[in-house]
Amino acid sequence: MADFQARIYVTLRPSVLDPAGVAVCSGLHQLGYEGVESVRIGKYIEVQLTAADQQDAQTQLDQMCDRLLANPVIENYCFEITELATA
Amino acid sequence: MADFQARIYVTLRPSVLDPAGVAVCSGLHQLGYEGVESVRIGKYIEVQLTAADQQDAQTQLDQMCDRLLANPVIENYCFEITELATA
Repeated sequence: MADFQARIYVTLRPSVLDPAGVAVCSGLHQLGYEGVESVRIGKYIEVQLTAADQQDAQTQLDQMCDRLLANPVIENYCFEITELATA
Repeated sequence: MADFQARIYVTLRPSVLDPAGVAVCSGLHQLGYEGVESVRIGKYIEVQLTAADQQDAQTQLDQMCDRLLANPVIENYCFEITELATA
């Protein structure tokens, strides 16, 4: 067993409206950042987990994203896995 | 002027409690993922903006994060900037 750190990025699918992103974009314009063209807001999730190996960690994380962390109907996800040094 | 895409990661400082992360961690345990040790939830923000050059984009994004996108009291942020191909 080894420890892994995963960095998961969950983003809305491009075809899905992002009202929060639009609000932030408008807020940035009001603060004077006129160059901002679009803002999309997603989630960034860090998970530490113990798994047999990198492949096992990847399989588990794929399932976690599909079942809980992302809503596959409106969101995409991707992740990176790093193996942590074992003590 | 050039177009840039920024990927901004906003995370809670390590000393700040993350109740949402704890709830997700417990949810994953209930789904059978016993190997999960900790979960921290942050924000992932994609911003497209027009700026004079990469340095200008970086300065503007630093200010945006400090003023609106992150709460510097409890959150850290970092970002990557990519120049988009001009039409």
